[in-house]
Amino acid sequence: MAYCFGVDVGGTSIKLGLFFDNGSLIDNWEIPTRKESQGENIIPDIRDAVENKMTEKEIIRSEVIGVGVDVPAPVLDEGIVKETANLNWGYKEVKKELEEALLIPVVVANDANAAALGEAWMGGGKGENNLIMITLGTGVGGGIISNGKLISGAHGFGGEIGHIHVKDGELCQCGCGRYGCLEQYASATGISRLANEHFKTWNKETKLSEKDLSARAVFDAYKMDDKLAAEIVDEFAGYLVKGMHDLEIIIDPAVFLIGGGVSKAGEVLVDVIEKKFRRNVLFTNENTKITLATLGNEAGIYGSAKLVIDEFGK
Amino acid sequence: MAYCFGVDVGGTSIKLGLFFDNGSLIDNWEIPTRKESQGENIIPDIRDAVENKMTEKEIIRSEVIGVGVDVPAPVLDEGIVKETANLNWGYKEVKKELEEALLIPVVVANDANAAALGEAWMGGGKGENNLIMITLGTGVGGGIISNGKLISGAHGFGGEIGHIHVKDGELCQCGCGRYGCLEQYASATGISRLANEHFKTWNKETKLSEKDLSARAVFDAYKMDDKLAAEIVDEFAGYLVKGMHDLEIIIDPAVFLIGGGVSKAGEVLVDVIEKKFRRNVLFTNENTKITLATLGNEAGIYGSAKLVIDEFGK
Repeated sequence: MAYCFGVDVGGTSIKLGLFFDNGSLIDNWEIPTRKESQGENIIPDIRDAVENKMTEKEIIRSEVIGVGVDVPAPVLDEGIVKETANLNWGYKEVKKELEEALLIPVVVANDANAAALGEAWMGGGKGENNLIMITLGTGVGGGIISNGKLISGAHGFGGEIGHIHVKDGELCQCGCGRYGCLEQYASATGISRLANEHFKTWNKETKLSEKDLSARAVFDAYKMDDKLAAEIVDEFAGYLVKGMHDLEIIIDPAVFLIGGGVSKAGEVLVDVIEKKFRRNVLFTNENTKITLATLGNEAGIYGSAKLVIDEFGK
Repeated sequence: MAYCFGVDVGGTSIKLGLFFDNGSLIDNWEIPTRKESQGENIIPDIRDAVENKMTEKEIIRSEVIGVGVDVPAPVLDEGIVKETANLNWGYKEVKKELEEALLIPVVVANDANAAALGEAWMGGGKGENNLIMITLGTGVGGGIISNGKLISGAHGFGGEIGHIHVKDGELCQCGCGRYGCLEQYASATGISRLANEHFKTWNKETKLSEKDLSARAVFDAYKMDDKLAAEIVDEFAGYLVKGMHDLEIIIDPAVFLIGGGVSKAGEVLVDVIEKKFRRNVLFTNENTKITLATLGNEAGIYGSAKLVIDEFGK
């Protein structure tokens, strides 16, 4: 049996997984992300973490088919990133640097894309060849699998679904420079923004308080039948479904997976999205499923490992 | 050398091409589409056309690796279409019926998707693995190639980009049942609709006349610096680019190819789209090319032949 590693590099911690090349997870752990000094320790830290685990498990280099790494940035061919604000990286040849450090083949991907691949492989979309994962976190990320392969695009921007245009006439600018992007309404930040707007003009009873208008507070109140929360959730879901309707006719997935921090709201979130989505289904796609992602924080290490197996496995 | 056929089934005519399996076109011709009696003659007519050509060229069955057929409808797995209004077909097992008639392997695809594949193989996108073809005809069709493969989706609806939502608050309903679809503004019909609206309120000089507010007339006037035509073209291009911006961040193609009847306007069309597209480019995709499709009416037979070569070729 051969081995591979899946490494998910986030702004706070680096998650690592050791896998058999048939996909079973042997061990997983995490280390802090040291972003100081332009993040120059990140790659040596990954090298050390991988090598220490190999020593601990008595694994030799020739038994490791590769190391998959996902990062919070678009990834160009040859595993190059241009700039990764969350890691304090500028231009970095991630694949080349880590291969030189480890002397093991490396594959690099975008984190949201890797998460989608992980979910398609071992999570909520297991066995599906056409799938879209929507990650509702601080921003809105996404990963698209079509014909069983990740859509990473010609410049590494494939699946950046947080920037689908969903509202005309928006005056507030998105971080990307455009106006009316899905991320402005459907991320945790976006939901909180909608909550603040609605709260200002609300003059009836509500369980929500100005002190906590977070996405989490909104969904907690929604579950207790709060009317203000219902208004906010309705608006949020409207934008999300608008983006999903565009994705439906562009990609036509068998399943939409909802993940990220906001998805911790659970099945009520799927219910509200489902109702809106079905109200306006095109053509014959009424079978498109909507479901929660299931791998949580481990989706990235699974997806990164799968990239290695697809590229270097037997 | 082995052979294959590419067949492009349209509402008026069926175009056929005989190819060597290395992609060189040997012969192409067309026959009328007989839509009467629920289009029951269409498949026998294709059979006869293929068999007659084989007799004429002294080709035997074992020398033909397959026949690719594209149709103006979403195509499900196993080459099944649910309903094809343009051919008067109801539910039809196209692959099965034609294979039984010809005793040759058959592949079936959507027409806009096949055209995209043809352009990626031998046309304006030659050699590109990530490409979007936008067909501006009576409607707006599309085909998406990602990782070198067509995105046909889980239910055959992949690449239906004419139904990307590009305008909030539209009161006029699209044929698909939604409101504000790209097709409502960027098809030949849509441009003509915009022209009619603008014409009503225009009180300055113009070369356009109420008698002919077709897309062609609009572009002809635009080329002669007509100010009303410029307004119409500007609005049309605005919607088209809005859809392209969504596609850019979802698919991230290396190139957008513009085809279909409206694209006969030529390079001025590319210029106006280019200017609007570049004004609002996200991240680092400034290298995304925009260009005219080059195969014209032959894109479908090329794409259909390519499907055969990909599936049954050596």
